[in-house]
Amino acid sequence: MVTKSKKQLQAKSGKANRVVKVALLGFGTVGSSVAAVLAASRFPGIQLTHIFNRDVERKRTSPAAKRVPGTVVWTDNIDVILKSNVDIVIELIGGINPVEGWLRKALASGKSVVTANKQLIAYRGASLGKLAAKHNVQLVHGAAVAGGVPVIPGILQGLCGDQVARLSGIVNGTCNYILSRMEAGADYATVLADAQQLGYAEADPSADVDGYDARAKLCILSRIALHAELDPDAVTTQTISTIEAIDFSYAKELNCTIRQVSRAQVEGTLVHARVAPMLVPLASPIAWSHGTQNMVVVSGRFGGDVVFSGHGAGGEPTAVAVVSDLLAVAQGSRPVQLPVRKRKVTGEFMAPHYLRFVVDDKPGIVSAISGALAKVGANIDSILQRPGYPKHRLPFVVTTEPCLTSTIERALASLAKLDCMLERPLCLQMLQIDDKPDEP
Amino acid sequence: MVTKSKKQLQAKSGKANRVVKVALLGFGTVGSSVAAVLAASRFPGIQLTHIFNRDVERKRTSPAAKRVPGTVVWTDNIDVILKSNVDIVIELIGGINPVEGWLRKALASGKSVVTANKQLIAYRGASLGKLAAKHNVQLVHGAAVAGGVPVIPGILQGLCGDQVARLSGIVNGTCNYILSRMEAGADYATVLADAQQLGYAEADPSADVDGYDARAKLCILSRIALHAELDPDAVTTQTISTIEAIDFSYAKELNCTIRQVSRAQVEGTLVHARVAPMLVPLASPIAWSHGTQNMVVVSGRFGGDVVFSGHGAGGEPTAVAVVSDLLAVAQGSRPVQLPVRKRKVTGEFMAPHYLRFVVDDKPGIVSAISGALAKVGANIDSILQRPGYPKHRLPFVVTTEPCLTSTIERALASLAKLDCMLERPLCLQMLQIDDKPDEP
Repeated sequence: MVTKSKKQLQAKSGKANRVVKVALLGFGTVGSSVAAVLAASRFPGIQLTHIFNRDVERKRTSPAAKRVPGTVVWTDNIDVILKSNVDIVIELIGGINPVEGWLRKALASGKSVVTANKQLIAYRGASLGKLAAKHNVQLVHGAAVAGGVPVIPGILQGLCGDQVARLSGIVNGTCNYILSRMEAGADYATVLADAQQLGYAEADPSADVDGYDARAKLCILSRIALHAELDPDAVTTQTISTIEAIDFSYAKELNCTIRQVSRAQVEGTLVHARVAPMLVPLASPIAWSHGTQNMVVVSGRFGGDVVFSGHGAGGEPTAVAVVSDLLAVAQGSRPVQLPVRKRKVTGEFMAPHYLRFVVDDKPGIVSAISGALAKVGANIDSILQRPGYPKHRLPFVVTTEPCLTSTIERALASLAKLDCMLERPLCLQMLQIDDKPDEP
Repeated sequence: MVTKSKKQLQAKSGKANRVVKVALLGFGTVGSSVAAVLAASRFPGIQLTHIFNRDVERKRTSPAAKRVPGTVVWTDNIDVILKSNVDIVIELIGGINPVEGWLRKALASGKSVVTANKQLIAYRGASLGKLAAKHNVQLVHGAAVAGGVPVIPGILQGLCGDQVARLSGIVNGTCNYILSRMEAGADYATVLADAQQLGYAEADPSADVDGYDARAKLCILSRIALHAELDPDAVTTQTISTIEAIDFSYAKELNCTIRQVSRAQVEGTLVHARVAPMLVPLASPIAWSHGTQNMVVVSGRFGGDVVFSGHGAGGEPTAVAVVSDLLAVAQGSRPVQLPVRKRKVTGEFMAPHYLRFVVDDKPGIVSAISGALAKVGANIDSILQRPGYPKHRLPFVVTTEPCLTSTIERALASLAKLDCMLERPLCLQMLQIDDKPDEP
């Protein structure tokens, strides 16, 4: 059976009587999991031959190295990899420099690349893809978004026939862990400290909590699902660090919770894209996601909403995505390619908004707020004020009917000047559920 | 831009300067939606050239035919298709005969096949796949399970690196419509009649409600996810038609609902597989599915649970799967292939069970039931009896701790002989939630 399947694999890869040689760049959590998955499954026709890592001796003698075949060459010299006869380079180091240069050399020398590097693919994916095509090799990155959840292959192979108009999701497990713990009653600082201790969040949590990690992933998803090439730096982000316990209380009153949502939507030649904490209806699939889970909802003109969810990070789930990509490349299975266009991006959405004010309560404040909103043409949908807060530091909430975020921001800019405003008002978009109706 | 992408497509398909010609077999709901999607998206390099249908004049003059290019040849003679120079045949007729013979001829004459035919792929997929490989063409069937939800491409391309141990899901929208309406309070007969009127259920609903449709889909999923070839006729099915309103009441008390679940699980060389109404915890993703939605949970050794959900049927969602497959075949994108083995199948699961009895109440019945269960070694977990039912026709429920279904059935066989049993006891497996713990 093994002999037969080996032959099948070789036939598929078009390289009869030859094993596909693989180098691993990076032997951290994901890299060592990739080695473990390969050791456990022994896919015919695939051989791990090289591992590159800085301070390689420490890695070679680590417990995780026991799953690595004795024949593997360990090196801290990238040229050993680039000058070797490996067919596929798996890159799990991350960041743009110096990795981009290495991968350009690898592609140019006829090696295919499998990578989980979201920043590299968000910023340089289009250019690297062209280089790969020029040299008739592959660049695949199924692990760059949502780790073990096959969002990228699912969209590329399964939804390419649709016209995807919109995507939204939770693609940063750290923020989801923090916000779902806050939903259960914890406060931001405590949960962040826990997340750091558990290894879910970095010492400097900015990439996660301020949305830069999710923004890179949103740009990758926009490229493959919306066929829109976005400049990641042009995508609006909003930190989750200003969310407080009180916001979850008000969200609950509105039958919502709060999640860091990454969303993008095509309208003509413009893409509306934003990474921000948003109010999510409890009935929406986005609200199902708890802990470090990832969830992406892709909305097509013909297929309606398709939901992908699962473990978006962690060594083994991410290794599944990497090894699946490796098998695809080894077997010569190329993803469907459709033309991608550069698109301008805006953070504007026509949406209801949640506004939370903290004021030194005085007569006339509600009138000032409603007046400022009326002046810009935003209609108030509800005003919520929970009891039990001191009048001199009173939080209260206004929700609006759907309007543009910039409209709200104009009103907030004038309100921020009022003496009674103790904090900058918090403004969150509210997601709406809008799937196609059920069909048989 | 179109010119460039056309070239790209042709380069990928290895057929430079040539358009891929496509024939459509079947111009019903899905077939006409495929034509509409192709007309709306105008994918470069793809041309619909033939449509086959019985009573073809009626189709050619139907409103849906307005989306079909005037150059298309309409025919009710299959030989016109088989002898034509089309590259890809899309089969949307369904059933095994006479379609199997036609598709064998198509594959043997060098035409690739895209099909949504679940029965054909469940029973003959392995053999047809070999024929396709022999003639170096493709047989793809992403639309055969879960319509517009890319479960098949997601598993094939995105989870092939995992060792999938278990899958479970809702793959029959008709049953899900019926059971989720019953959950909301309607009774079976009323909902079935509604489903028939809405076109969700056939005049003879057996294929749906008795589980044969879902069974075919489960066998297809087992082949691609578990790499296990099952005989569909050997897979245990259980009808949903014995579920009553009272069962939803008791399920709710147990924090569950009831769904038609298709599940399969590998243990050594045996596959446990079953299509049946089951109790599903409200906290399980399986319970999220309402109306005609489909949902599949794939559980891997390394990646944990991955959830796919969306519109499993309907013309346009299914057309998305068909057109996505068409693009993949046209671009020469072959799915990853791993060895598949024939496996024996059993309907046994080690699970808690829900038993609903309807009795003419007399002293000693609970004792008889608990005695019969004790005799086979099944432990009772709870006994539930809601007030308000007549003593002479009393429904009550027993749940057991995890044990084999056959163990329970031995006890039920002896209990069925009791005079006081007014109906055959209903026995449902209860799903348990058992995902890998969260990781960062």
